[in-house]
Amino acid sequence: MRVQDLSTPAVVVDVDVLDANLRTMAAVHPGPALRPHVKAHKCTALAAAQAAIGHRSFTCATVREVVGMAAAGLGHDLLLANEVVDAGRLRSMVDAAVRHDARVTVAVDSVATIEAAAAAGVTEVLVDVDVGLPRCGCAVADAGHVADLARARGLQVRGVMGYEGHLMALDDPVAQRDRVDEAMALLVAAHADVGGDVISAGGTGTHHLHRTVGHPGGAPGVTEVQAGSYALMDSHYAARGHPFGLACHVLGTVVSVSSRHAVADVGLKAMGMDHGNPTTGAGAVWFLSDEHVTFAPTRPVAVGERVAFVPAHIDPTLAMHEAIWLVRGDEVLDRWPIDLRHW
Amino acid sequence: MRVQDLSTPAVVVDVDVLDANLRTMAAVHPGPALRPHVKAHKCTALAAAQAAIGHRSFTCATVREVVGMAAAGLGHDLLLANEVVDAGRLRSMVDAAVRHDARVTVAVDSVATIEAAAAAGVTEVLVDVDVGLPRCGCAVADAGHVADLARARGLQVRGVMGYEGHLMALDDPVAQRDRVDEAMALLVAAHADVGGDVISAGGTGTHHLHRTVGHPGGAPGVTEVQAGSYALMDSHYAARGHPFGLACHVLGTVVSVSSRHAVADVGLKAMGMDHGNPTTGAGAVWFLSDEHVTFAPTRPVAVGERVAFVPAHIDPTLAMHEAIWLVRGDEVLDRWPIDLRHW
Repeated sequence: MRVQDLSTPAVVVDVDVLDANLRTMAAVHPGPALRPHVKAHKCTALAAAQAAIGHRSFTCATVREVVGMAAAGLGHDLLLANEVVDAGRLRSMVDAAVRHDARVTVAVDSVATIEAAAAAGVTEVLVDVDVGLPRCGCAVADAGHVADLARARGLQVRGVMGYEGHLMALDDPVAQRDRVDEAMALLVAAHADVGGDVISAGGTGTHHLHRTVGHPGGAPGVTEVQAGSYALMDSHYAARGHPFGLACHVLGTVVSVSSRHAVADVGLKAMGMDHGNPTTGAGAVWFLSDEHVTFAPTRPVAVGERVAFVPAHIDPTLAMHEAIWLVRGDEVLDRWPIDLRHW
Repeated sequence: MRVQDLSTPAVVVDVDVLDANLRTMAAVHPGPALRPHVKAHKCTALAAAQAAIGHRSFTCATVREVVGMAAAGLGHDLLLANEVVDAGRLRSMVDAAVRHDARVTVAVDSVATIEAAAAAGVTEVLVDVDVGLPRCGCAVADAGHVADLARARGLQVRGVMGYEGHLMALDDPVAQRDRVDEAMALLVAAHADVGGDVISAGGTGTHHLHRTVGHPGGAPGVTEVQAGSYALMDSHYAARGHPFGLACHVLGTVVSVSSRHAVADVGLKAMGMDHGNPTTGAGAVWFLSDEHVTFAPTRPVAVGERVAFVPAHIDPTLAMHEAIWLVRGDEVLDRWPIDLRHW
């Protein structure tokens, strides 16, 4: 099968760029020093490639991601890095973990999340700590108390996590390093009150600022880095100079051409838009509609021609599609189902 | 089943508001004067409700929408209001139409789209005309020629369509009326060169400006109005004073609360973001992450509490979900699969 045989819109991944990205990150944070986040791709086949290069512990954002990873035999050490209070879903996750011999750890940051985890039969938790991003996580000062509450409910507390998501895209590298250091000092302080072996943080945008076994240059503190976008990348992260290539685009077909613009079949339902418009080498993107992208081509394009659009944000884009097409040049090598979608 | 039993995020539709919206539109543009656009909901059960109130002709944006509508027995008169040059997909659509005794008409605006339709065994087309939105559609001056080319390839030309999408959200009602009149004058001029019985245009944002059999006050010209969002609505259209209620929200669960903000499980993968953040009566939305919305509550909220978020754009939001939950008050009446997703 050739790329031109693909129906569009299609998520296309260059296998060599993907492999290079996986190798590059594994050299910085090898083995258990990286806990890849599957929310970026929601694809067990891609997770298997990450496991094959040495990362056997994974981060998940949803129960369905945990269950799917366990069922795929990738349940060595799964972290649900998210607060969930849905008792039925948590129980089904625990059942799946038992059935597939998977280890599952859940983030908690409150009495309610501890109660939900304990009632569902979860056995291991991390205390989620607010390190500056206004989202989940308890206050640093409360972390020890949250850990005590969890232990009192019979839960094993493995340590802490804290996602410095507000620092992923700072323009000034010195300011970014300083602020990551500050955030990690908070997390280390919380850990002193919590205990356990795990201090988990980070993302693609700050991966180079964390010191792990393979990367002595970063700030001390974490035992593992959570990163997901690095594998496929997007235009938002690519603009920040990280050593990862753009492995992924959404392939479209030109369906209409006028004197001033052209239209391809990659619309709002095929492209995460929260970080802005996709980009293309074929011209300047004007706007997207439900099923269309209108762009001003920089060279003449014809109806039927294929055009690649690079998403500004990879995670929500992948979640809209049923499969990844793995290619090398013009050859389609494989189809990987995006099998961890929904909740 | 009660609303509090739903797993979140969940698309929830108030059946009484939906029914009122369907009745209101059917009073303005009854029966065949409205060709509801299924792209707004991608749900054959909702389309069946539109058919039950008298609209038996439908607009589709993708081949999969056409095939699904035909398979659901809703194939009385399906318009694929979009240019498609994928020969395999068009053939599968024609096969499905034959199998399910459905009538399918396809939009064309160029030689390539005419060739693709004819080669796939499509028998009926509309000439898509550019009435000002920079997207698909041939120039008005070319419409007659496009129709001649289609007829020369053995296709029946049923008429013209032209979507004035750039005029859906004009703030000044007089300017909007004038510009819709101008756009429809272009479409009528194109129709004079094309012929056929159909002049199809419009959307929820301009539905009141088109004259049809049930609505003598609008601009003359069209034989039918395409509208989709009116059934469920969103905050973008609701701000414009149309006589349709907000029937739909995405229900979330609060998973974390701090002194300044709260977090619910409705993120970027559950909410179309191209028109901006969702809105909620529970407070001010700060931002969305992949699986979270952070908001500043206007009253105290507790972990586990349910909060409703109204999407800014209904179409891409619905395309992210597997089902609509139909409710009246606290009672869940039905689950409608969103069965026309993808392409």
